[in-house]
Order: sequence, then C-alpha cells, then structure tokens
Amino acid sequence: MNSFGRLFRINIFGESHGPAVGIIIDGCPAGIELTAEDFVTDIERRKGGTQKGTTPRQEADIPIFQSGVFNSKTTGAPLTILFENNNTRSSDYQKQRAFPRPGHADFVASKKFGGNEDYRGGGHFSGRLTVCLVAAGVVAKKVLQNISVTANILEIGGESDVEKGLQKAINAKDSVGGIVECTVTGLPIGLGEPFFDSVESLLAHAAFSIPAVKGVEFGAGFLAAKMFGVEHNDAIVDVNGTTGTNHAGGVVGGITNGNNLVYRVAIKPTSSTPKEQESLNWETGEVEKFSVKGRHDLCIALRVPPVLEAVTAMVLADLMLLEGKIQRVFNQ
Amino acid sequence: MNSFGRLFRINIFGESHGPAVGIIIDGCPAGIELTAEDFVTDIERRKGGTQKGTTPRQEADIPIFQSGVFNSKTTGAPLTILFENNNTRSSDYQKQRAFPRPGHADFVASKKFGGNEDYRGGGHFSGRLTVCLVAAGVVAKKVLQNISVTANILEIGGESDVEKGLQKAINAKDSVGGIVECTVTGLPIGLGEPFFDSVESLLAHAAFSIPAVKGVEFGAGFLAAKMFGVEHNDAIVDVNGTTGTNHAGGVVGGITNGNNLVYRVAIKPTSSTPKEQESLNWETGEVEKFSVKGRHDLCIALRVPPVLEAVTAMVLADLMLLEGKIQRVFNQ
Amino acid sequence: MNSFGRLFRINIFGESHGPAVGIIIDGCPAGIELTAEDFVTDIERRKGGTQKGTTPRQEADIPIFQSGVFNSKTTGAPLTILFENNNTRSSDYQKQRAFPRPGHADFVASKKFGGNEDYRGGGHFSGRLTVCLVAAGVVAKKVLQNISVTANILEIGGESDVEKGLQKAINAKDSVGGIVECTVTGLPIGLGEPFFDSVESLLAHAAFSIPAVKGVEFGAGFLAAKMFGVEHNDAIVDVNGTTGTNHAGGVVGGITNGNNLVYRVAIKPTSSTPKEQESLNWETGEVEKFSVKGRHDLCIALRVPPVLEAVTAMVLADLMLLEGKIQRVFNQ
Amino acid sequence: MNSFGRLFRINIFGESHGPAVGIIIDGCPAGIELTAEDFVTDIERRKGGTQKGTTPRQEADIPIFQSGVFNSKTTGAPLTILFENNNTRSSDYQKQRAFPRPGHADFVASKKFGGNEDYRGGGHFSGRLTVCLVAAGVVAKKVLQNISVTANILEIGGESDVEKGLQKAINAKDSVGGIVECTVTGLPIGLGEPFFDSVESLLAHAAFSIPAVKGVEFGAGFLAAKMFGVEHNDAIVDVNGTTGTNHAGGVVGGITNGNNLVYRVAIKPTSSTPKEQESLNWETGEVEKFSVKGRHDLCIALRVPPVLEAVTAMVLADLMLLEGKIQRVFNQ
Repeated sequence: MNSFGRLFRINIFGESHGPAVGIIIDGCPAGIELTAEDFVTDIERRKGGTQKGTTPRQEADIPIFQSGVFNSKTTGAPLTILFENNNTRSSDYQKQRAFPRPGHADFVASKKFGGNEDYRGGGHFSGRLTVCLVAAGVVAKKVLQNISVTANILEIGGESDVEKGLQKAINAKDSVGGIVECTVTGLPIGLGEPFFDSVESLLAHAAFSIPAVKGVEFGAGFLAAKMFGVEHNDAIVDVNGTTGTNHAGGVVGGITNGNNLVYRVAIKPTSSTPKEQESLNWETGEVEKFSVKGRHDLCIALRVPPVLEAVTAMVLADLMLLEGKIQRVFNQ
Repeated sequence: MNSFGRLFRINIFGESHGPAVGIIIDGCPAGIELTAEDFVTDIERRKGGTQKGTTPRQEADIPIFQSGVFNSKTTGAPLTILFENNNTRSSDYQKQRAFPRPGHADFVASKKFGGNEDYRGGGHFSGRLTVCLVAAGVVAKKVLQNISVTANILEIGGESDVEKGLQKAINAKDSVGGIVECTVTGLPIGLGEPFFDSVESLLAHAAFSIPAVKGVEFGAGFLAAKMFGVEHNDAIVDVNGTTGTNHAGGVVGGITNGNNLVYRVAIKPTSSTPKEQESLNWETGEVEKFSVKGRHDLCIALRVPPVLEAVTAMVLADLMLLEGKIQRVFNQ
Repeated sequence: MNSFGRLFRINIFGESHGPAVGIIIDGCPAGIELTAEDFVTDIERRKGGTQKGTTPRQEADIPIFQSGVFNSKTTGAPLTILFENNNTRSSDYQKQRAFPRPGHADFVASKKFGGNEDYRGGGHFSGRLTVCLVAAGVVAKKVLQNISVTANILEIGGESDVEKGLQKAINAKDSVGGIVECTVTGLPIGLGEPFFDSVESLLAHAAFSIPAVKGVEFGAGFLAAKMFGVEHNDAIVDVNGTTGTNHAGGVVGGITNGNNLVYRVAIKPTSSTPKEQESLNWETGEVEKFSVKGRHDLCIALRVPPVLEAVTAMVLADLMLLEGKIQRVFNQ
Repeated sequence: MNSFGRLFRINIFGESHGPAVGIIIDGCPAGIELTAEDFVTDIERRKGGTQKGTTPRQEADIPIFQSGVFNSKTTGAPLTILFENNNTRSSDYQKQRAFPRPGHADFVASKKFGGNEDYRGGGHFSGRLTVCLVAAGVVAKKVLQNISVTANILEIGGESDVEKGLQKAINAKDSVGGIVECTVTGLPIGLGEPFFDSVESLLAHAAFSIPAVKGVEFGAGFLAAKMFGVEHNDAIVDVNGTTGTNHAGGVVGGITNGNNLVYRVAIKPTSSTPKEQESLNWETGEVEKFSVKGRHDLCIALRVPPVLEAVTAMVLADLMLLEGKIQRVFNQ
C-alpha cells in the first residue's frame, strides 16, 4: 500500500508528528556514490519557508542512513533513510480536532482506520512524507545518469507570472493552486508497455500519489481532445524516430519514442487556507465557522517541482532496470 | 506487464490479427451468476460500426468461457474468456508496412521487440484488446452490485454537441478527439490509501492504459489550479461526510469520501486519420506522403465510455475486496 | 493467486473437465523460436498411460497458441497456450460426489468456494493443470539456453529400484509415493537474494505448487541437520568459487554459488488409491467405505520429473532476467 | 526483494554492523494494542547467550517504533520498528576478510554486488536480521488472536535429547544442526490456494528465508514418499472435516483443512564452526587453513523456534486478511 515500483522499489513510512519519516529503496543498484550532501539541493528546493507563499515550518531534513550504504556507496541491500521530525507543534492540531478539515483526509482517515489514526498534523497523510519521495528521487536521478529530469512551475493561481499569482493569494488571504510541468531528456526508445504498464499509466500513478495533484496530462493533453488527427500526429522525420512536433509528450502506444517526455500536473490550492471556512463540527454535529490553525503554505504548488521530478525519476529508474538498460551493479 | 489489480486481478492477451484476444480474471469471487448474455450490452456499446464516426469492422465478439464458470456461476478459480478474431484484413496493413504510422506504436514496438512483434493491425497494441477490458468490466460491475459506474461523452472535437463535433471531422476528412467523464455513485467511505495506492493513482493508472487517453483529471481537475482554497474546498455538511460541492471528485487524501466519484479523460484524435500525412518511409529513409489504409474510427472517443467504465469498475472491485467490503464467496 | 514470477510471469487456468486448460507467460523475451513441436518431448514425458503405474487417460495435449507467437517466434507480448480437454469422463466423478475424497481438495474446495467450485475431476485443483506448467517449462528452458535442468526419480515406494517400488504398489493394490531430484548445471554465480527471495525460497515456493509434493530439501537437506559444521561446509577450492563438496546444493546465503544446484522433492502416494477406504459420506454424515472411481495413477511421482524441471526453469528464467543476464529481446 | 506478503507485507533492512536493523509492516490492521513489552518474550527466546550453544553476543534489542503506533495502538499506517546495533566487533571480521567463509555468503555476495557489499559480520546476510522477523511475528500473532503458533526443537545433532546433541558439538569442538517443528492450532478451513499460493508454497517460501534452513516438510513429509495411499490418506471422520490422522499436516490441495498445521524445517550446522577449516584464501588464491573468528552459535537451530513461529504467523496473518477473516480495523 505504501510501496511502488517493481525492481527499484520505494517504501515510505512515518507521520507528521511522529519521531521520523523515512524511506526504504529496495533494489537500488550497488556501487552508486552516495552521501548526505547529495540530498541538500533537492531537499532545500522542497522546503518551505524560503520563498513567499510557503510554510514557515523549518525542518533540518538531514538524511540519516540506516542501511544500504557502506564506504559512501550503495551496497545493493535495502537503502533506508530517516528524516527526524524536530519541529512539530502538535498543539495546533489538537485544538481544532473537532473540525475535520475540508480538503484534508481527517474525516476519511477516521472512518477508514476506526479512529486509530495519528491525526496530528495529518499524520501519515501529511505532505511531510514528500521529503521521502524527494530523497528517493535523489537516488533515482543518480541511477539515471545522463537522463535529465526537470520540473518547472507553469502557472500559479491561473497566472503564468508566478509572482502575480501569489500576490492574488496574499491579497485574497486565501490559498491558490498551480500547474507544474516535468520534462525528461535523454530517454531511450522502448521504455514502458502497452496497456497497464504504459509510461503514462506508471507516471500518472506516481504523480497522483503526490498530495494535492488533481490532474495529469501528457504532451498536448486535454487540448488533444480538441485537435484534428493530422494536427495532433507527430510526424517521424528521421530513422531515429525523431518527431517534428511533440504532441504525444514523448510516449506512443505507452512506450517512450526517444523524444522529450513532457507532462503536466494540476495542483489544487492548499486545503489549509488562512481564510475562515464553514464545515462540520464533529462534536456538535453542526456546520460552523472555523479557521485552520498551524503553519501552512499559501501555495503548495511551489514545493511540487522537486517532488514531481522525484517520482518521475523513480518510475524511469525502475523502467531502465526492467529493460536491462541499467544493471544491478552500477557502471560495471 | 499485462496484468493489473491486487485481489481482483486482470490479465489481457492477444493480437489484433491473431486467433483471439482474451482475458483472465484471477481472484474473481465465487458464486456470481454469469452467462454470455451479460456481456451483450457493454460489448455492443464498445463496438464500431453502429454509429457515425466508428469503424465498419464488425466482430461478433461472443465471449467464450474457457474456465472459471460452472453451472452459470463463477467458481472462484481463474475466469478465462476468449474473443475470436474473425474479421481481420491483414493485407491492408501489410501493404503500408513501410510507414510506421504516426501516433501509433509501429516504430517503438519494432525498436522495443527487435522486429519480432506481430505488426498486423497494431498487433498487441491494438484497440481490439479493449474488448477484454470491457469484459472484465462486466464482471467487475456484477461484483460491485449497488455501486453504479457510468461514463458519458462530454465533448467531441471541442464541441459539447457531439453530432456537431463529428460533422467537423467528416467535413475536414480528418479524425477528432473528445472528453469522456465517468461518475460512480454508491461508494463507501474509505477506499484507497494515502500516496501510492490513492484512488486517483489507481484509476489514473487504469485509465491511461486505455489507448488514446492523454489526460486524466478528478473533480475540478485542471480548473482547480486556478481556484482559491476556500472556493475549492468541499465543506462537509453532515456527519456522513456529505459535501456541499464536489470539487474533489469524491476523493480526499487518496480516499473515497462517500460522495460521487467523478473524473474525466482526454482522448486524442484517432491516429489513423483518412487524411494524407507526411512521415518517415522506413524503406527509403525519407519523409514521404502516405494515407493510412484499413478500417478506422473517425473518433475513437465514441467507443471509450464502456471501456472507461470497465477499468473503473475493475479498480473499485479490487478496492472493495481489499477493504473486506466484498467477500471471496459472493453474497454469503 | 494463480500466477508466479516477477519478470517471467506465469498464469495458469482451467479445470479438469472444462473446455481447456491453459497458460499465459507474460514477460517472455521476444525472438525465441517456438513451434508446437518444441513441446512434444516434455509433454510426452508428463503423460500418463505410457508406463506401468500411470493413468490410462490419454490427452492429445497439442499446444494451441492464442497469442504471443508470430512467424514461429515469440513476439514479446503475452504468450498464451491452450490445451483442450478432449478425454474427460465426468460421470465417474458425479457418481461418487457424496464422498469428499481423502487426500484431495474436494472437502476444502467446497468450504472455500461455497459449493460453487467445478468439482468434476478435481476441477481447478486437478493435476491436469501440470500440463500448463510443463509448457511454461519448455519455454523457460529455451530462455535458459546453456543452463541444463534435469529431474530424475530417486526412489519409488521407498525403493531406489523403481520397478520394485511399483511392483509393491501393484501387489498391494494401493498407490505409492516417491522422491524426485532436480539438478541444474551451468548457472552463474549470484542469482537470488538473501531472505525472502532466496533461491531456496523461490524454488520451494514453485515446487510446493506441484500437487502431491510434501517436502523439499536442498543439497544435504534433512541430513544436514545431523552433520557437524566442518563436515557440512563446502570448502571453496578455487577463485571461481568451485567447492569440493556440494552439501549446500549450490546455494549459500540464498544465492547461487556457481556449483550444481541440487534439490529433491517428496511426493506423497496418489490419493486416489484403488484400495477401499473409509471416510465421510457427505450425504449421510457417516463414515462409510467407498472406492475411488475414475482413471488414476498408481504412482504420481512417475510423472513429476518434467513438471519439477518446468517450475525450476521458470524460477531460474525469472532470476536470469532479474539479474540482467538475459535481455528482453533474445540473443540481441 | 526484501519484502514478503500481499496484504500483511513485511520489509526488512539493515546490516549486522550498521547503525540498526529494522522492519516495516505495511498493511497491519489498525487498532491493535502494541507496546515494546509485547516483544520481550519472543526476542529473549531468539537471543544468543542465554543457553549453552548460543553466541555470547548480547543485544539489548529494544524495539524502537518509528511510525504506525499512536496511543499504544497500531494506526493502520506502515508500522516501522528499529533495533539498534550496539554490540558489534567489526575488527573480528576485518581480520579474516581474506577468507570467504565456507557456508556463508561472503563469496557470492562479493560477486553479486561487485564488492560493494557491507561484509562486516555478514552485512545484510547476517542472522542478525532475524530479530526483524521475530518482531513481525509478534505483531502477526496479535493479528491471529486465537490461532496458536508454536515451534519446538525436535532434534539437535541427530539426537532427540537436545542436551546430548549439544554435548556432541562441544566434545567435537564443532557446530551442529537440528530439526524444528511448527504446529498451528485453531486455523479455519479454506486458507491458501491451489498451485502457486498453496499454504505449503507460502510457508516454505517464508521458512527458507530463514538463514540455515535447508529442508521443509509438511505432515509426514519425506516419509510420505515411502507410504501407501490408504496409509497416508487422512480419512475425514465428521462433517467439520476433522481427520483421524494428520499425515497431510493440515493442508490438502494447498488449502488448510481445519486440522492442525504441522511442518518441520532442517537447520544446517552453524557455518562458523570453531574448528579449523581449509578453504580459499582470496589474497593468495590458494586453499589454506583458517579458523573463523567472532562470536558464534554452536547450534543456530536453538534460536530458530521463535523465528519459525514468526514467519509462520506472518504468512497466516496475510492469508487471514486475504480471506476476509480479519478486517483492516481490528475487532470492529
């Protein structure tokens, strides 16, 4: 339930206010150089508090290796990384336990787990766990070597000028969503399968596991539904399979075609808006006004790019191993 | 690679011009009444040739049970169904083998499988295999009992008046795409998991396994990226978790919330457009003009609704079994 | 439930008295030459009726390819093979339905599947399905190329002189069991994993899926429990890892060590003995005498060697693919 | 590779001389009372140093919960437990690195992982990781409630008088093996599947993942190969499926039959015998005499019972969940 991948297999665990969150990567090739410093850039990119619109909660987020690394290289055994939770303020959440927060899992988690769930800070449902995904991505990107995975914000609050979109949120004292695009270059032809293990299926599966993602589209995506066939088809212009256009986003019949892989995700506005809301009070059974306490992002989309890169890299590392393009002992 | 699901597990096989396509459902509960007649409606809905814009190829598409049914009931053993391929015209494909058709898997399949693939009619990549998905859906819907799964066409060729959209294609002598929406009613609260097995992840995985799907969105979907938080949040209005609006599409934190599940897919225009195209000729190594031969749909989106219902029902049947809401012996 | 393997994945289906039994191999490499004739030898070895002690039921057992083969080569798509059931006599089983046969699954199947199971000839529990395993083995052996997998009967009815063991059964008008040993030569070092995916775990998993297997041991096996450490340890005698003895059966720490892989299975006597038994009569609720009708083997162990080879080859083909020793396009 | 189970899913990680070993249980039902004290008994049983014949290495082995427990109950989220490695003496291993120890994974691990493996104390191959299995077993036994899982030593060094067997080892200054039997009472009828997911397949898979296990047999096991059919068959004596004898060990057709489940494992003598051995010296390339340094058990079989119980309980908890006999929220 909390694992993904076939040969490069990720397991995540932890709760927002528990002792730590963490990840096991099972099937990671042996012989990859890996130190805590490799994680700094992407973990910083993911962190809140460094830009307008993100949460002031600050975690040190130093990866603590528990297994699978020896002499600064991966061993081929399960690679386990912990991130301690040092900076939690559970009291914020305790106070407003009466209100299952709209847009959050509070209500459904309670029903699903019979009230046994750790509800503090969203517990296991917390966006805090995306630090584990980012860590997996750091390793996956190393596995992918010359394949480049890059995600960028296309739009915030409906504006392609991101600053402008954020200002809208600040002015409205509300949260906003956004759109993030991921591009992969350097992929070989032939990753993926027809039907259930299409590259689109696997990437969408992974992308929708990022909290707040509500839409995924490849290439022309939803716009393709409005195009004519000749217009949408990407003509092949040479014997390497290069296409003149890339409406398919680099995937045909579920298989990478050697062109850039391009896809986008829609991120809903942060559910924990500072604005007053009306919703059920569990204790009274009535709909009442309340405001979400705690530290939150005005726009969670700002933090998504390294997470989207991470899950993309995870999927592609797995496919490269499945296709035998990468061996279990690295660079051998 | 060609299987999906954990407890209600689907395996599909076959090629467009081979002897048959088929499906195994492993983990199907025992005791479900099942006869060939149960398949008629959805298989007819999927079929080409019955409406403007679909292919004139006609298959009888009678399900042939090979295993798992006894005395007109499922036994609990693997349920295997064949659909014979009676009405194939391989010569159409043979003639234009020089052109790897744009938008199709011809080029990537050849690279991936080293030229060993059955290329006739797209082989294993053919939309023909969606009849297997539809058959799985018929069984899955029976498993789901009072849960209703319905897909409808929202838009063809950019027009919500579908006839108008089709006429555009006919006038342009080109193919067009469309948008299909699926709605599920009667779901319990609590299906799905946070992260990798979120309901969105599983449904998107399944939906992107349908050929020609290029986008998937839940509830407000891509529009959510343009909304404010308070606007998007679905306030809970009673102790059953009923929400006033349904921008989330019935899923929060990856878990069903008891409201209607609503999601949409974008279908690209049929790659086999009747219009002349320019693309690589493998034999000459040059870009040349050609027209796709064979019988094809002007708008494949027209045939998607029963397929989308099918994969949706498959995913939900699996989740209902995982959650223990359905037992392995039916109605016991 | 009815599938096995990670990259070379087997699915079996069918009932003893249904229209057919069959198999899908998903993940079979493309480009393997394959015709019906490749199956003749192993299928004949498995068949009853050709030697003293096996059932007179004769099946033609001609493999019917449904998918995955094109121009006499595997395509890389799912490989589906049917074996029709032509020679069934359901009335034999119908008559004695009152007695859940001791040693058979009649009683437990009825409880598990709520009486919906196809009980004729054991239904899906029938040894008939081992023809599917044998077929998978034929393909797996081709994948393994220069790795040789051979199983032999070591002992029948407690006698290493097999004829003598069979004669004991004939004299006693009862059935007998036996021991079968499988030896694999030509394996590389390094297949398998510590713990859950140890070569022993995977082979034992597969071997115990053969009906009537009640014990599995590697190398010295149960005898190892009586040995001293220095006696049991296989000293390494050269830099290739060659060992002087092979008490480990070619597996240490769950990993192949480059020596011959050797393991044995214990086969119980055929449950359908011709001798009169006493057991529950479902209809009367009383213990009564009865004799099993139908055609049966005096010693099912005689038919096990090609089946044991098959499941062994399946496991090893999967491990060779996992380890990247075999690519998805064959001999490329 | 390092995970097992379908719904009650175990992941293990860690190395003998790394910071910690640990386990994730994914799919553990919510609402089970769980504290560190629950682990004391089985962890003590597993520990070395408390009886003649086991290693003097002493670990505190206090379970450290990282996730999945809240208010002393399981939450339904992944349950992660660490066991710190406090008492390691890597220098012992460093010194004799030249000799890949016979019976150990030193040689194969080096080949498999390209020399990147953590070789100290056997690294990830160490028996140290069985503490993780024992921990999983503690939780699994709680899940199983009234089902009792008990393993006992049947024989050490070929002697049913265990003290006598150990004395043989002490006298010979060598290590010895043994046989351990596991009995499960209180199982329902109907767990398991025909073929690949037979109860025997799953239990053997799990049992062979315990280091040093070289044979597994159910009920009469290898002795069954010497019996006649009427002798081996367990006559059913009442409508509940009770059998007069239990030669099948409680499993027919791969399915539990409601009688006691009984199986045995053969444990090889500890590979690290104190006695001098001759084997390859990697540095010289010659066969030389050496003695294994470090603290080791004379008879590892003594420590197997709680580990065998643990993997048995894991498998059965998974099957009980699969069969819907246990729900994801406990005792609801």
